[in-house]
Amino acid sequence: MGYKKTQIGFITVLTIFQIAFIVLSSIWFRYDESFDETSGADFDLRTDYYYTYYSDVAVMVIIGFGYLMTFLKKYGLSAAGYTFLLAAFCVQWTLIANAFWHQIHEYGELHRFDVDIPALIEGMFGAATVMISFGAVLGKTTPLQLILIAFFEIIFYSLNIYISVLRTHATDIGGSMIIHTFGAYFGMGLTTVLTSRKTKEHLKNPDNDATKVSDVFSLIGTIFLWLYWPSFNGALGVPGQRFKVVVNTVMSLCCSCVGSYVWSVLLNKGKFNAVDVQNATLAGGVAVGTSANLYINPVGAMAIGLIAGSISTIGFNKITPFLEETVGIHDTCGVHNLHGMPGIIGGISGIIAVYAGTEDHSLYNGAIGNYFPEGDHQPFRQLSALFITLSISYFGGLLTGFIMKFLGPNAEKPFTDEEFWFDEENDAEESEEEELEKKPLDDEESNISSSEDIQLKEKLSSEN
Amino acid sequence: MGYKKTQIGFITVLTIFQIAFIVLSSIWFRYDESFDETSGADFDLRTDYYYTYYSDVAVMVIIGFGYLMTFLKKYGLSAAGYTFLLAAFCVQWTLIANAFWHQIHEYGELHRFDVDIPALIEGMFGAATVMISFGAVLGKTTPLQLILIAFFEIIFYSLNIYISVLRTHATDIGGSMIIHTFGAYFGMGLTTVLTSRKTKEHLKNPDNDATKVSDVFSLIGTIFLWLYWPSFNGALGVPGQRFKVVVNTVMSLCCSCVGSYVWSVLLNKGKFNAVDVQNATLAGGVAVGTSANLYINPVGAMAIGLIAGSISTIGFNKITPFLEETVGIHDTCGVHNLHGMPGIIGGISGIIAVYAGTEDHSLYNGAIGNYFPEGDHQPFRQLSALFITLSISYFGGLLTGFIMKFLGPNAEKPFTDEEFWFDEENDAEESEEEELEKKPLDDEESNISSSEDIQLKEKLSSEN
Amino acid sequence: MGYKKTQIGFITVLTIFQIAFIVLSSIWFRYDESFDETSGADFDLRTDYYYTYYSDVAVMVIIGFGYLMTFLKKYGLSAAGYTFLLAAFCVQWTLIANAFWHQIHEYGELHRFDVDIPALIEGMFGAATVMISFGAVLGKTTPLQLILIAFFEIIFYSLNIYISVLRTHATDIGGSMIIHTFGAYFGMGLTTVLTSRKTKEHLKNPDNDATKVSDVFSLIGTIFLWLYWPSFNGALGVPGQRFKVVVNTVMSLCCSCVGSYVWSVLLNKGKFNAVDVQNATLAGGVAVGTSANLYINPVGAMAIGLIAGSISTIGFNKITPFLEETVGIHDTCGVHNLHGMPGIIGGISGIIAVYAGTEDHSLYNGAIGNYFPEGDHQPFRQLSALFITLSISYFGGLLTGFIMKFLGPNAEKPFTDEEFWFDEENDAEESEEEELEKKPLDDEESNISSSEDIQLKEKLSSEN
Repeated sequence: MGYKKTQIGFITVLTIFQIAFIVLSSIWFRYDESFDETSGADFDLRTDYYYTYYSDVAVMVIIGFGYLMTFLKKYGLSAAGYTFLLAAFCVQWTLIANAFWHQIHEYGELHRFDVDIPALIEGMFGAATVMISFGAVLGKTTPLQLILIAFFEIIFYSLNIYISVLRTHATDIGGSMIIHTFGAYFGMGLTTVLTSRKTKEHLKNPDNDATKVSDVFSLIGTIFLWLYWPSFNGALGVPGQRFKVVVNTVMSLCCSCVGSYVWSVLLNKGKFNAVDVQNATLAGGVAVGTSANLYINPVGAMAIGLIAGSISTIGFNKITPFLEETVGIHDTCGVHNLHGMPGIIGGISGIIAVYAGTEDHSLYNGAIGNYFPEGDHQPFRQLSALFITLSISYFGGLLTGFIMKFLGPNAEKPFTDEEFWFDEENDAEESEEEELEKKPLDDEESNISSSEDIQLKEKLSSEN
Repeated sequence: MGYKKTQIGFITVLTIFQIAFIVLSSIWFRYDESFDETSGADFDLRTDYYYTYYSDVAVMVIIGFGYLMTFLKKYGLSAAGYTFLLAAFCVQWTLIANAFWHQIHEYGELHRFDVDIPALIEGMFGAATVMISFGAVLGKTTPLQLILIAFFEIIFYSLNIYISVLRTHATDIGGSMIIHTFGAYFGMGLTTVLTSRKTKEHLKNPDNDATKVSDVFSLIGTIFLWLYWPSFNGALGVPGQRFKVVVNTVMSLCCSCVGSYVWSVLLNKGKFNAVDVQNATLAGGVAVGTSANLYINPVGAMAIGLIAGSISTIGFNKITPFLEETVGIHDTCGVHNLHGMPGIIGGISGIIAVYAGTEDHSLYNGAIGNYFPEGDHQPFRQLSALFITLSISYFGGLLTGFIMKFLGPNAEKPFTDEEFWFDEENDAEESEEEELEKKPLDDEESNISSSEDIQLKEKLSSEN
Repeated sequence: MGYKKTQIGFITVLTIFQIAFIVLSSIWFRYDESFDETSGADFDLRTDYYYTYYSDVAVMVIIGFGYLMTFLKKYGLSAAGYTFLLAAFCVQWTLIANAFWHQIHEYGELHRFDVDIPALIEGMFGAATVMISFGAVLGKTTPLQLILIAFFEIIFYSLNIYISVLRTHATDIGGSMIIHTFGAYFGMGLTTVLTSRKTKEHLKNPDNDATKVSDVFSLIGTIFLWLYWPSFNGALGVPGQRFKVVVNTVMSLCCSCVGSYVWSVLLNKGKFNAVDVQNATLAGGVAVGTSANLYINPVGAMAIGLIAGSISTIGFNKITPFLEETVGIHDTCGVHNLHGMPGIIGGISGIIAVYAGTEDHSLYNGAIGNYFPEGDHQPFRQLSALFITLSISYFGGLLTGFIMKFLGPNAEKPFTDEEFWFDEENDAEESEEEELEKKPLDDEESNISSSEDIQLKEKLSSEN
């Protein structure tokens, strides 16, 4: 049969994980009683209160991140396909990992866990975090590595939530820190260990490039992310806070979009750069995450967005080339620019917003307890959470990178689908002769060549 | 002018149907009084209770099925365009057909029918069923045939709902049986009669093939279907049941996604097959449909999803080739694998779930009547509904196939847009000479030149 | 560095506007008190009452209009990218402009303005209006012009709302008049002045053309618009009216879709024309806008849809060529057919529906005041609003066109991305020699074969 090691590994590992998930959930998962029919109309109100936000977040994770990453010209199936698989894997695994820490925190021991829709939203948040890290190594890993990375990352991710949120009581409704900063620096750690040795090679690889069609595909991802970001930031909002989340997130995103276009033109000889438009426009959503439910006023949100969009665009045009050429770190999608720096801006904005609230209590109409469990200590808690997140994510990424390096090889033909996606023309069993004859047609799948092309080429070859 | 018979037929038939729909609705359709303003706030709550689900289902039917079917390299406009037209046609016709049977069942005679949003949802469900059957004959029919097929299918579809649901009292909230099984076997009946004679020819047709770009397009459809499936299964859920529908459907889909990837690698020489990823990943949504609102626990949903995803993938890789080569049935999209078998799994899962509920009444907290109108007889009712659905759909499909065969020819240039979509280059009135000169340009629409083209050009330039 | 004037202008103008928006909102914008937490559960109900509709409208504006306009083969990045930027710009600017007029109308002076979600929806409506006008000049303007056009258009747009709605008390829930008619005739005014001199040149330009891939992309936009249109028409619906909006809009769109397909086949030698399918199918949504919340019954909505779809298709096939060739006006997307004429049909349908309501008071169960503030004078008010809208929009468009003409040049390479989008191959600093060597590869990223391919093939065929 001739399966490669990495293929056998993929089948084995994924099968074991999936069966383990089912076994664990059979012992552990029930429906949340409070969502039961006894509560009648109310109950369904609760379902609808969360479900729309859940499905918006799910669109962001799979369509948004998935299509955003299809910009590589020969890696479209992999980008969208792996995102899809990783989401299905991570939702389950995050449910389990989060349930573990929630139980430990609440009871000190393991109980039956009641699945509700907020738990599914947290599952999608875990998937989002993995997708961000995936962006840093896009095109360079095998599917087996991706599954293992996701497995380890969710362990660190849920540990960080336990420490930063459940223990430290930081507020981070939209996940600027616990999702974006975490995902970005985990990815940076990962790519430092795993792919930096080949940075120069990757930069020269002609397949590590976009086309106009793939750029327009990619923008679909960007725009769905931009549109549904208020749902991302507000999905877990308690009643009374979602309104501010929506207004703040929309205003911030409008300004990061405008800021990116301006800086893109400034830094690209008077033209727009598709990469900036696909990514930096979203930095406002990332950066307003921590303070989205706070009284920052529209102007606060707009300022955060403009700053984040500007810094992110500068990142794509100046910091990424520096990291690649001088430091030697290769971050395929530039997640450091879209999620890393804007995530830190988000964490810092959160500290400032929280500090303002603790200084001027009238701002929250005396309801400050709904927002800051730690009262006047809150700003320090926020700062702690930011450092904890940075540490756990970066070292978690480094460690996972070393494990991956130990376990097996990276992708052999980076930035191409062909290594792991079946293609009838090339992969079917054919006599060698036939294959040789067909070789010149290889390109066929790259995009809709038609029979005429082929005739043309045959004609040409016969001429020679 | 030189219109072809099938073109004149299309214009005539569709015009007559559309005018008939308008006349019927002028006599028959009013707004649902209970959605009237007198009920104030409540009323709008009802609108919003259903509208979000309606629009998610609508996205699934037109974007989901439409783009899922754009995988054929030269049939993109037809796949998306016919889906769009059929949806607009079927919503109206299903409204009328369902209204007829509802009235017959409730009053024994025809009354004025009050349109509400659940009725629109049922309209989209009718459209979904037709779209499933369309998948079996994709690329092989004329637009005229599609309109006529939709017309006949909705008659059988609404008859089956009358018998299986209104009379037999089967429960099937997500339509595993009445939508997916029905649509798939109607399509199989149809393709048996209509296109099996040309199966070998279709298999050899180079246009019956995908490209990387069309595969990535197609995945957009898949992912929207996957994401909004909880809305499909829960759209008509009574208050108190939607929560379980969401959890069950999400868990089932995660497992069918993982299952499909594993089996795809196993059955395709260690690589992923785009067809499996585009289709079998969704089998969990189909298969959990009947039991989505029942107490099957997360583990039950996960098991159903894993089984359905696995069998569906095996279907695409083993059963479809068998049906094509040995039996001689050509099912373009493999709807038998995605909707047929998983639909039956759904029906059977429903019987088991219902049986468990009738055995252990504590499971439903005594509210079993909300779920099973027939109490302890319910399992048998479910089984009956499954067989009734299989019979009506398959024989309905065969019969419709014979009518189509009698009425006129199939597509002359299967799997291409050019037969029915206007193309300025080729279709404008030009002198014959001009046309001859332009012939070599045909390729232009194939759009995406590849590196080979370029090499070609270089060769050419060097030659000159 | 060698920035062009239009590039420096773009950076300067957009920066000034963005900073002005932030300054204005810091002085002026606060959160709406009534959405505050004191109101508890209710309050969030209000957020959710509007937010879903807001995000559907946002999808329509950016994904819908953005991808609808990607049909040009070399203008995909620009179409989607400019839509995105304009939306982010217009939401902010419309918020400010509308807030100004609202304050003037309510208080006669300027107060602090409380931002709520309906205000964000109105922001997106402003963006939609600009996008419609953008369609008329698609491919022919510079980014600088687009920003300036948006700036001026929103001034006229908000002035028209002040006069037609706030002062004249016209009812136009879905914006047939104030959004669609306005946007279309503003665009027609604009293109009359700005681009009519080059109409013949544009018509002959081979880049002013679609390909199959870009057509399928474009249909994504169409279908999202079609699907979410009930949200567009109902977004600002008061409780008790949204139900009718949903039913009326869905029924109207189904009929305009069927109508367009029938007329498209009739007018295109028996084949479907992608342009009609991408556009005219939506005319029912436009035309039912004014009367969507009124008691027109399903049959009224269906008739409006069928008429609008038919006239729109006739417009694309007969009126556009007449305008182009005889009058000399070039309307790239045919917005006159999709928004202009159907918008007027919408205005007239509104007059008829209102007249029916004033004649037969029983129709509205005595609640006529909720719909028509002007009672029996309402029909005349509607008519006035239609004429006011037509006048302000067309003359506003002409005036803006003259300003644009005075300020600077149009795009130099119309219908292509290359003038304003950075492309590593072409735009990076390279020695001249390298560039010369690379020249033959140019085409590679453009993906979409261009006239060069064609010449090549012709050459080749002539050689043989």
